[in-house]
Amino acid sequence: MTALEQLRGRLAELADLASIEMLTSWDQLVMMPADGAEARAHQLGALARLTHERATAPEIGTWLDELDAGARAGERIDALEQDVVRLARRDWERARRVPEELAAELAQASAAGQESWRVAREHDDFAAFLPALTRNVELARAYGECVAEDGQSTYDALLADYDYGLSTAELRRLFGALAGALAPMVEDARAHSPRRSIHAPVAAQHAAVAGTLARLGVNARGWRVDVSAHPFTAWVGRGDSRLTTRYSDGEIESLLSSLHEYGHALYERQVDPALERTNLGGGTSMSIHESQSKLWENHVARHPAFAEVLAAELAAGGFAVAPTELHAALVGVEATPVRVSADPLTYPLHIVARFELELAMIEGELPTSELPGAWREAMRRLLGIEVPSDALGCLQDVHWGAGSFGYFPSYALGCLIAAQLWEALEAQLGPRDQALRNGEVGAIQEWLAEHVHRHGRRLDTIPLLERATGHALEIDPFLRYVGPLAGR
Amino acid sequence: MTALEQLRGRLAELADLASIEMLTSWDQLVMMPADGAEARAHQLGALARLTHERATAPEIGTWLDELDAGARAGERIDALEQDVVRLARRDWERARRVPEELAAELAQASAAGQESWRVAREHDDFAAFLPALTRNVELARAYGECVAEDGQSTYDALLADYDYGLSTAELRRLFGALAGALAPMVEDARAHSPRRSIHAPVAAQHAAVAGTLARLGVNARGWRVDVSAHPFTAWVGRGDSRLTTRYSDGEIESLLSSLHEYGHALYERQVDPALERTNLGGGTSMSIHESQSKLWENHVARHPAFAEVLAAELAAGGFAVAPTELHAALVGVEATPVRVSADPLTYPLHIVARFELELAMIEGELPTSELPGAWREAMRRLLGIEVPSDALGCLQDVHWGAGSFGYFPSYALGCLIAAQLWEALEAQLGPRDQALRNGEVGAIQEWLAEHVHRHGRRLDTIPLLERATGHALEIDPFLRYVGPLAGR
Repeated sequence: MTALEQLRGRLAELADLASIEMLTSWDQLVMMPADGAEARAHQLGALARLTHERATAPEIGTWLDELDAGARAGERIDALEQDVVRLARRDWERARRVPEELAAELAQASAAGQESWRVAREHDDFAAFLPALTRNVELARAYGECVAEDGQSTYDALLADYDYGLSTAELRRLFGALAGALAPMVEDARAHSPRRSIHAPVAAQHAAVAGTLARLGVNARGWRVDVSAHPFTAWVGRGDSRLTTRYSDGEIESLLSSLHEYGHALYERQVDPALERTNLGGGTSMSIHESQSKLWENHVARHPAFAEVLAAELAAGGFAVAPTELHAALVGVEATPVRVSADPLTYPLHIVARFELELAMIEGELPTSELPGAWREAMRRLLGIEVPSDALGCLQDVHWGAGSFGYFPSYALGCLIAAQLWEALEAQLGPRDQALRNGEVGAIQEWLAEHVHRHGRRLDTIPLLERATGHALEIDPFLRYVGPLAGR
Repeated sequence: MTALEQLRGRLAELADLASIEMLTSWDQLVMMPADGAEARAHQLGALARLTHERATAPEIGTWLDELDAGARAGERIDALEQDVVRLARRDWERARRVPEELAAELAQASAAGQESWRVAREHDDFAAFLPALTRNVELARAYGECVAEDGQSTYDALLADYDYGLSTAELRRLFGALAGALAPMVEDARAHSPRRSIHAPVAAQHAAVAGTLARLGVNARGWRVDVSAHPFTAWVGRGDSRLTTRYSDGEIESLLSSLHEYGHALYERQVDPALERTNLGGGTSMSIHESQSKLWENHVARHPAFAEVLAAELAAGGFAVAPTELHAALVGVEATPVRVSADPLTYPLHIVARFELELAMIEGELPTSELPGAWREAMRRLLGIEVPSDALGCLQDVHWGAGSFGYFPSYALGCLIAAQLWEALEAQLGPRDQALRNGEVGAIQEWLAEHVHRHGRRLDTIPLLERATGHALEIDPFLRYVGPLAGR
């Protein structure tokens, strides 16, 4: 076998292992009996260790060196294979830079930190979480220093795990401008588009979710739709997409979260089949992935025309509501302390706060012990609210407990990129109002496949975005999207 | 790390991989959308290749040699560790004897053979299956020759994959005696205990299965009960047992099959926790596993006293039936061509026929092209019936299409061993009639845990049986069990 064949064989194996890990995690959250937890931790641990060993094995370096030598000697490989080799080298070198002991410490601290966080949040006791947080910040810093490339700061290096090619400086600039524009709009939006509730029974929501997803192409041959404590998506194979949602009687979150998860699933389904079982066969970054979920959540589910579809599906499930009233409930604005239930306008401000705080912790400017105070200050400044407790403040998210630093920005970038893609899409296809009123999304799916999905990992976040929209990453499309909520 | 620690680490990894394979297969049959099949085949292939590579790796030989040297030098390891090392050497040497090309050919021929079998059965076209069957017999013979130990015949060697320590000569003797005793009983049993149907609605069966399993300790914390095309059991972890059953309106098969699968699951749950994630932590052989399912199917579900429990559970589900009538339906005898729906008396005769035929094919005495005729002759001789078609004859089971030779005997051995264990259990605990009438099975579970389950793989089939019952493998307990059906 040639070096390329051997490399592609290993990459196919790693893709299969990643799918198995996805399935195993999905099962844990959706199907597993509770008493299976201990064995499942062992199983996931074994998969992670095996994957790490196979992904960092020295023979990959040998194959890559042989391919380099071949290229220097004038051997030709096609453009797809060049991308396979380019990303294989990037991933392999990055993974090899982490000493085994550090990788083990990170995994151990992540598990312990999540447990510490769970208990601390339950008792609203930040002090109980502080040692784990401090340890996680130290380890993340050590990890960032290991993987940093020339000229990268530690936080730059952490970012690259989720969004290769983004820089801290660029995020500072973007998020600064975003906060500067959004924060003054919050008060106006509260008056202009006040939050209101709709009490649709769970059975009607269930029927509406099924009916709406069916219109988008979700069928039993290639999809599962289940319930879990927190909505998420698993892609177990090209024809095996699994999304979850959750239902509560007083909320209509299920309509938004199911379309959000659908966006993640559609991205993975529409990657070019030629990339399957290579290292290029998945979504390219966390921010592009989040842009796909946000596009379906913000620009389809929250579109006034699509409210007619959602209202019709709720009516078919036995719950009557006027489309205008439903739309108003889906976009109502209110500054509250909790990120996951935030409205479309205030949501990115929750992220800006987290970005500022985690950057300051990683850079050593904010001692971890001072996080609660800094959190309250940020919420006051950005959202104009007082945080009632740490449980509803700096303890609300699992990320820092799990040791994830550099992840939060993708949530806000997803909002920005979704708006930017949506404008480009409508500029090319024309306004979507009439099509969405009829529940027709075929042209949207095709546009996304062509401009975003099919590329898989062949293009990183920024080149992908520039090619799809003709513009660098910008905040104006998002501001135009949320402007009407504040009467702008 | 010592050689023993390294070995145990690898064995733990292999146990985790086996659990993941179990979960992945369970999902495929119970949860997976149909379009996920192609990706799933890749995933299972990757798991199988990785498992084979890790299980046959040369470093295992090095560790085993170091352990041997240590033992010669007087180093002591405890009895459990001795069994770990003993089985590790047996498994490793056996797996190493198969050349990689042959292993790949076997896997490929098994997949192709199953597909060929599926099509041939659908069209009742044995000729279409003949090339795949011939190939599978040749490959099984080649495989058996590779793994045969000193003095073993090829079929002995195949048997050892399912039941280590059994010999073809012993099976010939046992099955010959069994057929000689059973075949004359078939006609009497047809008259004495005729087959009769009970038409319980699916909803009532569903309620009865849930209610009965709950009495046996099945709860949502540690079990799943689902529906699949063919009932089976998956053990994903000590606290994660998953059984399936199936329902049809005109049959009460679900009551038998759910208790059958429960028996498999209970075996794995009650292995000594100290054996978990070692090479000893599962059931010891196919025949002992089948004895556990048959014990709950034949000796509990088909017990006249337990019919009162089943009838009460059906009544709770809205279907009234007299316990005596229900029991009569669960044990009714009729010689029919199909194994999977056979009654308890004729079932082992189906297996005797398959044993004779596959042994003759492996030994080259029966050309594969003559299988249909030989099948008809065997069914006439053993069951007194004419086979209406190959689809309901030699094409009814997937096993030979999948390349499994030496597997069938365990089905009949399971019946024999179950009866032998049940007699030993009642000899020690006293008759179970009153307890079963009350739905009390705690003492049965405990007896099985102590005498069968806890040992895991530490004892092979025959030593386990002799220790549990004080007797060698024999047919008389089974004949005493089915005798009353024929009025004996």
